[in-house]
Amino acid sequence: WCRVVILGGLKAEDDAMEELATEKEAEESHRQDSVNLLTFILLLTLTILTIWLFKHRRVRFLHETGLAMIYGLLVGVILRYGIPATSYHNKTPPSCSLKEGPVSTLLLNVSGKFFEYTLKGEINSREIHNVEQNDMLRKVTFDPEVFFNILLPPIIFHAGYSLKKRNFFRNLGSIITYAFLGTAISCFVIGNLMYGVVKLMQVVGQLTDKFYYTDCLFFGAIISATDPVTVLAIFNELHADGDLYALLFGESVMNDAVAIVLSSSIVAYQPAGANTHMFDASAFFKSVGVFLGIFSGSFVMGAATGVVTFTKLHCFPLLETALFFLMSWSTFLLAEACGFTGVVAVLFCGITQAHYTYNNLSEESTKRTKQLFEVLHFLAENFIFSYMGLALFTFQNHIFSPIFIIGAFISIFIGRAFNIYPLSFLLNLGRRHKIKGNFQHMMMFAGLRGAMAFALAIRDTATYARQMMFTTTLLIVFFTVWVFGGGTTPMLSWLHIRVGVDPDQDQQPCGDSFQVLQGDGPQAEGQSKTKQESAWLFRLWYTFDHNYLKPILTHSGPPLTSTLPAYCGPLASCLTSPQAYENNEQLRDHDSDLLRNDGDLTFMFGDTAITANGASGSGGDAAGGSSWSANGKRSGSTSEEALERELDSREQELLSRGTRLVFPIEDHI
Amino acid sequence: WCRVVILGGLKAEDDAMEELATEKEAEESHRQDSVNLLTFILLLTLTILTIWLFKHRRVRFLHETGLAMIYGLLVGVILRYGIPATSYHNKTPPSCSLKEGPVSTLLLNVSGKFFEYTLKGEINSREIHNVEQNDMLRKVTFDPEVFFNILLPPIIFHAGYSLKKRNFFRNLGSIITYAFLGTAISCFVIGNLMYGVVKLMQVVGQLTDKFYYTDCLFFGAIISATDPVTVLAIFNELHADGDLYALLFGESVMNDAVAIVLSSSIVAYQPAGANTHMFDASAFFKSVGVFLGIFSGSFVMGAATGVVTFTKLHCFPLLETALFFLMSWSTFLLAEACGFTGVVAVLFCGITQAHYTYNNLSEESTKRTKQLFEVLHFLAENFIFSYMGLALFTFQNHIFSPIFIIGAFISIFIGRAFNIYPLSFLLNLGRRHKIKGNFQHMMMFAGLRGAMAFALAIRDTATYARQMMFTTTLLIVFFTVWVFGGGTTPMLSWLHIRVGVDPDQDQQPCGDSFQVLQGDGPQAEGQSKTKQESAWLFRLWYTFDHNYLKPILTHSGPPLTSTLPAYCGPLASCLTSPQAYENNEQLRDHDSDLLRNDGDLTFMFGDTAITANGASGSGGDAAGGSSWSANGKRSGSTSEEALERELDSREQELLSRGTRLVFPIEDHI
Repeated sequence: WCRVVILGGLKAEDDAMEELATEKEAEESHRQDSVNLLTFILLLTLTILTIWLFKHRRVRFLHETGLAMIYGLLVGVILRYGIPATSYHNKTPPSCSLKEGPVSTLLLNVSGKFFEYTLKGEINSREIHNVEQNDMLRKVTFDPEVFFNILLPPIIFHAGYSLKKRNFFRNLGSIITYAFLGTAISCFVIGNLMYGVVKLMQVVGQLTDKFYYTDCLFFGAIISATDPVTVLAIFNELHADGDLYALLFGESVMNDAVAIVLSSSIVAYQPAGANTHMFDASAFFKSVGVFLGIFSGSFVMGAATGVVTFTKLHCFPLLETALFFLMSWSTFLLAEACGFTGVVAVLFCGITQAHYTYNNLSEESTKRTKQLFEVLHFLAENFIFSYMGLALFTFQNHIFSPIFIIGAFISIFIGRAFNIYPLSFLLNLGRRHKIKGNFQHMMMFAGLRGAMAFALAIRDTATYARQMMFTTTLLIVFFTVWVFGGGTTPMLSWLHIRVGVDPDQDQQPCGDSFQVLQGDGPQAEGQSKTKQESAWLFRLWYTFDHNYLKPILTHSGPPLTSTLPAYCGPLASCLTSPQAYENNEQLRDHDSDLLRNDGDLTFMFGDTAITANGASGSGGDAAGGSSWSANGKRSGSTSEEALERELDSREQELLSRGTRLVFPIEDHI
Repeated sequence: WCRVVILGGLKAEDDAMEELATEKEAEESHRQDSVNLLTFILLLTLTILTIWLFKHRRVRFLHETGLAMIYGLLVGVILRYGIPATSYHNKTPPSCSLKEGPVSTLLLNVSGKFFEYTLKGEINSREIHNVEQNDMLRKVTFDPEVFFNILLPPIIFHAGYSLKKRNFFRNLGSIITYAFLGTAISCFVIGNLMYGVVKLMQVVGQLTDKFYYTDCLFFGAIISATDPVTVLAIFNELHADGDLYALLFGESVMNDAVAIVLSSSIVAYQPAGANTHMFDASAFFKSVGVFLGIFSGSFVMGAATGVVTFTKLHCFPLLETALFFLMSWSTFLLAEACGFTGVVAVLFCGITQAHYTYNNLSEESTKRTKQLFEVLHFLAENFIFSYMGLALFTFQNHIFSPIFIIGAFISIFIGRAFNIYPLSFLLNLGRRHKIKGNFQHMMMFAGLRGAMAFALAIRDTATYARQMMFTTTLLIVFFTVWVFGGGTTPMLSWLHIRVGVDPDQDQQPCGDSFQVLQGDGPQAEGQSKTKQESAWLFRLWYTFDHNYLKPILTHSGPPLTSTLPAYCGPLASCLTSPQAYENNEQLRDHDSDLLRNDGDLTFMFGDTAITANGASGSGGDAAGGSSWSANGKRSGSTSEEALERELDSREQELLSRGTRLVFPIEDHI
């Protein structure tokens, strides 16, 4: 009996020791994880501080994302070469054999105790021996799904949410053409050219493993997602032409969605029978079906979640913001759960929310949500770019193939050219406000690759072909962001694209009243008619949206009772929120506000200028007065007068400059 | 040759099929994950909507956290009983044997292909057969480290960041006493009582496995972390007494930190030799050393990161906010990487940042950071509470032991009583402003348990003892949040605790002027002298902080050149930022602002009340007027003038009254 107790005690001690060892190891691993995350955070911190320095000194040749990549590269070099490769446990992990295929859950029986293991992925047989040796490098490698499920959604949502610009809707037709048709063209051009390159490599003997035609098409799809974040930041800062901005931004946002769906349709292209990787019509049509299905499904889902309205949470901005955030995220998850693409759904959710839900939020909440997503977007974007820099040195399966890389560089330029120039030509046939040559060249130049191409490339790096693609994509992103991003400012002046356009003109919600003011000459009035007719589709949608959708979905817009025909009275009053009636009054004020703003702009033309300025001037006066009077009334009041005079003169200056630059709202399609 | 090709083709097809199957499974698993997350998000959405309804209807008996738990419970019931348990693959996963202990990485050899598996954890032998069967329930179970690394930090940081209240610093001594001494007392009282309960269970034969004394102490530590979130929300809403609020809030924030470090020191208590789980003086002192080491390390680390200043990012609120966020997070990671407690570091980082860094941020950024953390805190808190509800039904290893549960309920009340009443008695010996009996009862009553107790309990549920603790903790959280949380309003009125205190008074940085107003009698003035002397330590710190730390670390406070002795001139001017000189002017304005605010407070006591009312009334009127003036100038300009005059006169009034009321900073200890 005694012996049993002693043995039991020893056993317990043994257990405790073993437990302790496991605990220590877990602690060590946890500490390592913290260090790795800390590395990234310090990278981001460094990036932010340097960005600030650059912004402060107005350095424009290097954007924050380019900077993040450089820092990432530096840290990658240090991790790779600075730390001795021999880790403390340098051995092959134990292995066991099974006859069945890989299962998601595996049990390990260690002398009667069971441990549960989960599948991490297949591992190359040549890497078995340094699984733990390369632990350091492997640790800073994130699960690629992190990019898709955590980092991309805020970026994409923010992009969609920022699309609420007059210029975007004005150029909607062109943007959609570039995004859909253009991306498809680019994908197939690049895919076919790359197939030629691959064939060449085969002939030269540079290809050591399989590389199918579908792989080439896949590469075409992922590399067709443009991300001119650098260019757009400079456009924003220099207030470059609004239409060009809208075209570029809209195209880049939408073609991300197209590229992501296109790439998954290409993966879904699985010809039946033995002749895999040959053309198969039924499989092709199936792929097209998959494309259309996923795209429209994601679109509908995103738009549907986007229009869900919060009616009366007005008084609690925190609740509103939280709800808004959750709704966006649930769109993503809902789409993923249904087998659609979350990122695409989130994009359309953002666009719809900006268009409808935004109007239902309280003022405080609109600001909060905007700022929340701005911060998330900023952090996610810089994280991805610094991770890219890091990945160049820490990713373990790079395959650098000079021929493939050079071929890819040439192909993407040809692909971009086949996208921009022919489509611009076709669009110009229909557009009254042509996309000029220098705009086309700028769009060609702004074909940067970024976060989406990277995320798509890193998602699957299991095969030889995919690894080569990943390496090439990384290099293309580096090159385009640094070289084209840095060359934006010289390029703008070289192409004579006007900058310094008053940004305020873009912020007016629906300034159709502008139309007459600006005109391209005396014949503007005459042409305005034809233009309106050619854009009847857009106009139809706009009217429908304004009169019916907005009143139903938001608290803004006229009450339905006034827009629906009389016989729909009961239905209308049922659908109209009580607020809408109140709002009707405010709307009128708002409209008059608009008029006033418009008035401000035309001011220089009319003789009523002094009155309008006087009104806004004295409004500012009172506001200024109240803040100044906290200190000393007497000095305050004098400086107020000075301020007033200054504001007036400044306003007039701006306005006088505005006349040259303000153009009418019109859809150019 | 032909045969080889055919075989190759078949092999490829086979591979493709297999790949497809694996891909399908991965897709299915991904979809399942999305559904699970979606469940939580819908839960949160539902909670938010119901909260809104409650707030709208001013229902106060159920707080959002209580609501979140109820919804969690409902979903848990549905998941547990509503979905048929037989999943489509209802089998024991394959297992393989090894002689060595569990390793973190295991390789699986399936006919020459290697797959990598990572350790998930030990699994109970009775559960092997339904590993996959219970997949649904297991899927909604998060890794407990998620709570510590993702959900708790924003909650704790936000708590620390919100501590910037006059009342907190005034009651600092009492708060620290309750938090440190009180939590230690509570921990040992509960631990010893529970050891008695465990002994009783052993006698009755209810105990089926080991339950050591250290386990009891551990339970005492985790259950000593109070979280009166419900009570505080009601206090906030009803504007209950500021000192009581500060005492409760401060205690709950600080005792989380104490409980977390205490529990890890108890885990670190590992007596050497064979007589494990007996008292061992050296191990005890080692534990005390661990406690002091971890606590002070975390404290220093948090405070150090907190004071790091951003000097000049003023013009870019986005960068400032992002940097602020990253700094807080890096504090957490840095502490974890160094082996300290991240949560504790984050708490002190929050407190320090609120005290110093906050002053360096631009106005826009202070708002942004506050709102950002508010949203994160809100989401994290409600997520934890709804997860608690869910866990009651979906957690697989519950051990309900009636004796243990009843014993625990009794123990925590006794433990809380031993914390509050004796310490209050001791504190009252030193405090001039006594903690009255009804305050003590309220503090006793407000001993709710919440997120921290839950997170500590779920962190390790490997042993029988820990599982029983987890179940009991869960029930205690439910009971206290629902019953005590719901009973706060009746309790407040039953204890005659005054509500409806002007909330503005709490927002004043140093408005001790209040004292006289609320005063304990006419002798207040006389005692003020003795009190000041007794609090010399606090005063010393305050002066040092105001004159030296604030000027060095922030842009607020007087320039060092004016506070340091003359012979330190060069050093002072080197350390003083150029902004401080400018700020000196503004500071003076700020001070006069304070004067003005203080004036507001006394207002209703004086006879000039009518004037103020009149002023604010017409002020509102005038403000309305200026917004109206957008429409018609004439009415606008007249009301603007009125506003200006009104503001002026109001200010003069306020200033003249303010002088009477400013009293020195003093603390009540």
